[in-house]
Amino acid sequence: MKALLFDVFGTVVDWRTSIAREVTGICGPGVDSYRFADRWRSLYQPAMEQVRSGARPFTRLDVLHLESLRTVLSEFEIDLDSDATTALNLAWHRLEPWPDSVPGLTRLRTEFVVAPLSNGNISLLLDMAKNAGLPWDAILGAEPVQAYKPMPDAYLRTADILGLRPDECMMVAAHNSDLAAAAECGFATAFVARPLEHGPTQTSDLAPEAEWTYSVDSIESLADRLNC
Amino acid sequence: MKALLFDVFGTVVDWRTSIAREVTGICGPGVDSYRFADRWRSLYQPAMEQVRSGARPFTRLDVLHLESLRTVLSEFEIDLDSDATTALNLAWHRLEPWPDSVPGLTRLRTEFVVAPLSNGNISLLLDMAKNAGLPWDAILGAEPVQAYKPMPDAYLRTADILGLRPDECMMVAAHNSDLAAAAECGFATAFVARPLEHGPTQTSDLAPEAEWTYSVDSIESLADRLNC
Repeated sequence: MKALLFDVFGTVVDWRTSIAREVTGICGPGVDSYRFADRWRSLYQPAMEQVRSGARPFTRLDVLHLESLRTVLSEFEIDLDSDATTALNLAWHRLEPWPDSVPGLTRLRTEFVVAPLSNGNISLLLDMAKNAGLPWDAILGAEPVQAYKPMPDAYLRTADILGLRPDECMMVAAHNSDLAAAAECGFATAFVARPLEHGPTQTSDLAPEAEWTYSVDSIESLADRLNC
Repeated sequence: MKALLFDVFGTVVDWRTSIAREVTGICGPGVDSYRFADRWRSLYQPAMEQVRSGARPFTRLDVLHLESLRTVLSEFEIDLDSDATTALNLAWHRLEPWPDSVPGLTRLRTEFVVAPLSNGNISLLLDMAKNAGLPWDAILGAEPVQAYKPMPDAYLRTADILGLRPDECMMVAAHNSDLAAAAECGFATAFVARPLEHGPTQTSDLAPEAEWTYSVDSIESLADRLNC
């Protein structure tokens, strides 16, 4: 194993709490900020599906997020000006990590290449890393390879960029579907349980659904398992 | 100014001394290792020119380096097996920084995005950074944008990936030609004098040849000028 590639939203950072806080900050306390965050996130897969299906050319996540945000603002009947809308859209650049993420990545980085393999665009992931102190070795993911997970190209082209065989790469994610797609491409897999990603009533991805290479409850636990 | 983009070979790392040392290590002490390094480097621009001209599709620098290496080995009448040839080609992944590079980048990184905008491929730059402790925020350059400097796309697409206007980016290089191309694209420019890049008899790029935004003799001096 030479490189550990990380899903980011949900696996490394707590998008729901972070987005809800920013919604309150920008839209005011009268908005149900968790419901707003959940609705915004619910438009994430359908937006990427337009690209995966070939209905539109590769489009950065920042652009897809902005389109979805306008939809949600309309549904919530919130009137934000253009500057405030842009500022809220950039909340995804400022998501906060789970408490174990920075110490775990810092340990793993001593022995492995660590990089995001996220559907977030490069500037989103770079701003997030600067803001949160995430010690990535490189910023990889959908934008450099022009393919959204779980398309095989997202995994295979990332391994190719690294000059590695797929079996020298491990996908680390809190989502069974992401790991299943990575495993199909020959990657090793590590499931990190994030039972609060979707809040206290989460029903999905509470446990590993296949024999992943590793299954842990934090990135620090993964560092323990990999002797870092 | 938000991002500082660095030329790498010559500006951040001392390729000539590093390559010569590896040539001696792999080919033995009977080879004129500095002449070998200079000859190998002399094939760098012609190899990239095939891509710039459209005569061949974008091809990673590792591949171009390997083709050039085979030519130089033949010229020097050195018979290396395939494994040793591959090992020597990867010497470019292990180049050593000038003494001011790591402390300078570390200071600049506190205030700016710092990333390579090199013609080196991602895995080359990533391995070099891990080996030498170069604290990049991301690994940018020719491969993510599929264009070799000094083509305008190399600069303009890099700014676009960062979500920045060209005038929010500064090219930092020891080569006047690189800065001239970046300036044409609207980048700010910083010349770092590296009078020993080509050894003690260097005649080119000893001084700034235009009114660059900054002109310094080390990356630490640039950090001084930018109040980092």
